[in-house]
Amino acid sequence: MESWKYFEDFEDGFVFHFEVPALTKEEIISFARNYDPQRFHVDAVEAEKTHFGGLVASGFQTQLLCFQPFCRQVLNSSFAVGAPGIDELKWLRPWYPGEKLKGSVQLVKKRKSTSRNDRGYLEFLLQAGVDKSPVFSMLWTVIIMTREGIDPSGD
Amino acid sequence: MESWKYFEDFEDGFVFHFEVPALTKEEIISFARNYDPQRFHVDAVEAEKTHFGGLVASGFQTQLLCFQPFCRQVLNSSFAVGAPGIDELKWLRPWYPGEKLKGSVQLVKKRKSTSRNDRGYLEFLLQAGVDKSPVFSMLWTVIIMTREGIDPSGD
Repeated sequence: MESWKYFEDFEDGFVFHFEVPALTKEEIISFARNYDPQRFHVDAVEAEKTHFGGLVASGFQTQLLCFQPFCRQVLNSSFAVGAPGIDELKWLRPWYPGEKLKGSVQLVKKRKSTSRNDRGYLEFLLQAGVDKSPVFSMLWTVIIMTREGIDPSGD
Repeated sequence: MESWKYFEDFEDGFVFHFEVPALTKEEIISFARNYDPQRFHVDAVEAEKTHFGGLVASGFQTQLLCFQPFCRQVLNSSFAVGAPGIDELKWLRPWYPGEKLKGSVQLVKKRKSTSRNDRGYLEFLLQAGVDKSPVFSMLWTVIIMTREGIDPSGD
């Protein structure tokens, strides 16, 4: 567990970069049929009649696929224990099939709990886009254990 | 298309009630392996060591499964054309296997676009819980076409 990150290990200026491979029409339709079956996510012909001009990914699929790399590569080797919510989430423009996303997750605020020594709060801003065009942003807070919270003896 | 809803058809006081069947441990693990593989969502033994005391659903799975009935039964027979973002989202307590959720989606604000006659904005508050215990809430805005936006001739 030596390399696992505690609250104290996230320093000001922390930033994580990621990419999300382009989706196919089939991947967009398959996700949306389960969770968000609006016509512009599941039917290419109907989607053309809307202001999107064609099939676009569900915003929830965008959210999940942008979160996934940060979860696997950062949260999963930390003592994070969930999140109380999302402070702001924006779908800035549609995400079309064939477009690769590039993004980053920045630490924007860090504070220890005032009532409990065992935990702190990290506020992250995730931003992703296609080339220079912003597609998605999410600002949210992660609860994470301090060293004292995991090992009170200090060993 | 006679029964499809335009902006004008959503009236003050609109409310939609829904239920989400209880999840099994396997359903929680299967979703989280794809999108949110934190230890308390994918590993029952590791989850017991955290403050959750056992396996809990990914907050994103809660979000999707609470949105799904509203999407299928309301949005999908309307001229809704997406959402600019989420204004507030709260995970109020963990959702454990075996717990059925009950919830509602209320219309909390309605306004026509000031710059375009073809559309308006509906702000909805989704709230879901187990018995009297709140689990999840989400406040978000849906863009939806007006009658004039779909059929400018008025026919």
